[in-house]
Amino acid sequence: MSKPRIAVTMGDPAGIGPEICLRLLANSEIKDICTPLVFGDVSVLERVSQKLALPFDPRDVRDLDLLEGETIVPGALDARCGEAAYRYVLAAIDAGLAGDVDAIATAPLNKEAMHAAGHKYPGHTEIFAERMKAERSCMMLTSPELTCSFATVHVGYLEVPGLLNVPRLLDVIELTADAMRRIRGREPKLLACGLNPHAGENGLFGEREEERIIIPAILEARARGITIEGPLPPDTAFLPWRRQSTDAFICMYHDQGHIPLKALAFDTAINTTLGLPVIRTSVDHGTAFDIAWQGKASPNSLFEAVTLAAKLSRRPTG
Amino acid sequence: MSKPRIAVTMGDPAGIGPEICLRLLANSEIKDICTPLVFGDVSVLERVSQKLALPFDPRDVRDLDLLEGETIVPGALDARCGEAAYRYVLAAIDAGLAGDVDAIATAPLNKEAMHAAGHKYPGHTEIFAERMKAERSCMMLTSPELTCSFATVHVGYLEVPGLLNVPRLLDVIELTADAMRRIRGREPKLLACGLNPHAGENGLFGEREEERIIIPAILEARARGITIEGPLPPDTAFLPWRRQSTDAFICMYHDQGHIPLKALAFDTAINTTLGLPVIRTSVDHGTAFDIAWQGKASPNSLFEAVTLAAKLSRRPTG
Repeated sequence: MSKPRIAVTMGDPAGIGPEICLRLLANSEIKDICTPLVFGDVSVLERVSQKLALPFDPRDVRDLDLLEGETIVPGALDARCGEAAYRYVLAAIDAGLAGDVDAIATAPLNKEAMHAAGHKYPGHTEIFAERMKAERSCMMLTSPELTCSFATVHVGYLEVPGLLNVPRLLDVIELTADAMRRIRGREPKLLACGLNPHAGENGLFGEREEERIIIPAILEARARGITIEGPLPPDTAFLPWRRQSTDAFICMYHDQGHIPLKALAFDTAINTTLGLPVIRTSVDHGTAFDIAWQGKASPNSLFEAVTLAAKLSRRPTG
Repeated sequence: MSKPRIAVTMGDPAGIGPEICLRLLANSEIKDICTPLVFGDVSVLERVSQKLALPFDPRDVRDLDLLEGETIVPGALDARCGEAAYRYVLAAIDAGLAGDVDAIATAPLNKEAMHAAGHKYPGHTEIFAERMKAERSCMMLTSPELTCSFATVHVGYLEVPGLLNVPRLLDVIELTADAMRRIRGREPKLLACGLNPHAGENGLFGEREEERIIIPAILEARARGITIEGPLPPDTAFLPWRRQSTDAFICMYHDQGHIPLKALAFDTAINTTLGLPVIRTSVDHGTAFDIAWQGKASPNSLFEAVTLAAKLSRRPTG
């Protein structure tokens, strides 16, 4: 089995992206499991490697040659950097679609800098969705503590119930089961949360979303061979013993999964978009302009994102 | 300063209530901070004390003399027990309203047994609310890890936004500030969560509930001298460092606070109803019929509930 090739976007050049990419390329454990290829600017990486005395081999980089490293001010908001960060992502996506790489892990871009360059995306996810035209996709956050997939994400509180339906939940359940099969190398155990307090307590609270939508989706998923329990009262779903026996939680809305993830796993969760034609994972932190190019940035989240991308690149075992 | 007198309801006689009440009465630390008075049946407590070789002094009990201890089957659903558990609560409420006790801590009753006796309440809270006719009240859950108050609780997901308004939030904030002042013995720091993901991100998601309702309530609370931050994105509100610097969270809906509480504090949270004319706290567990009268029940939650009731019985320091 050959090692998967993972495109790693360098992120905003004025942020911590270049430093954590250099540390990634210098890590032998990462290179044991995959072949990382940084999509970025060699001249920026060279300057940062000199400043921080980090090793650097330009052969590990797909050089887009957009910037002169000497002109970049670390920690400064710069439309040129926003433009470059955007182009690294496009190039990585195109390499993925062309089959040059097996997956993409993204270092952080700066939304304001990208907007200043004229690209008004809320974030990576929307760039990927637009350029890859995925028929069905969902966000999954995974950490050693727990993994959550989301039926809805960046919508208002009140819009959530109207966006829940059996086909959508089935998509999320199937995408999650498939991803967890690759990550765990075995059949995973999923757990779906209810929408209402106490999962509605048999219709006592709410509009019976559990009975009308969540339970039929669970039953159909089981009929398709997926191991899934629920719907559980959302507050007892994340009890410690249940976390231990659950590979992934199917969450109905953003905060249902983000609250326990951040309370328990802080910033160790890796964001991945399931259902894209090319696997995509992301660090769970920002550009950290305040500590850019200073040797202070932790590369752990990027290591985790690349490791996850490598695992998801495995062929299904089922 | 005399010690507060705390009424402790015995709960369902066929559950773990009698055992944990006996363990409470035998605890010297509890008796250092308050004078507990169990509202229950002496003949039941006597039988359990003999079975488990626990000390027992009938003078610690307000004997309602409703049952013959010999006729009770531990762990059995029994309408007589449901009736008795209900009457203990009423007697404790009346003692509180008459000024005989300073606060009430409740051991668990069994909903089904109480319903079998003809009292169709969803739980303690509604019995208290009806008999005490509180003008404004709210639920607060408190644990060593975190404390949450709730603007809404047992309503469907979709109903929440319609129940949020500035006066309601101000009530919850003021009741919480007052309770935390008594618990901490100093001015507390509160934090209000937003309703939408990312607290709406300046109107990007949701119906601007943050700008229309939560922010005005926060500003008015500050004008009244309360220290309160927010509205925060609900998922970052419960990060570890923020938990350390926050005395209580103002939550918009049941699962916003129950999810982190149960994920972090398991079953150590104590439930209290703020705003009642008499302080009321409750254990965070059920009747545990499967281990009733066996010497296996942990009295810790009851100890915590009584300790909290004693703290809340302090006169305000402000």
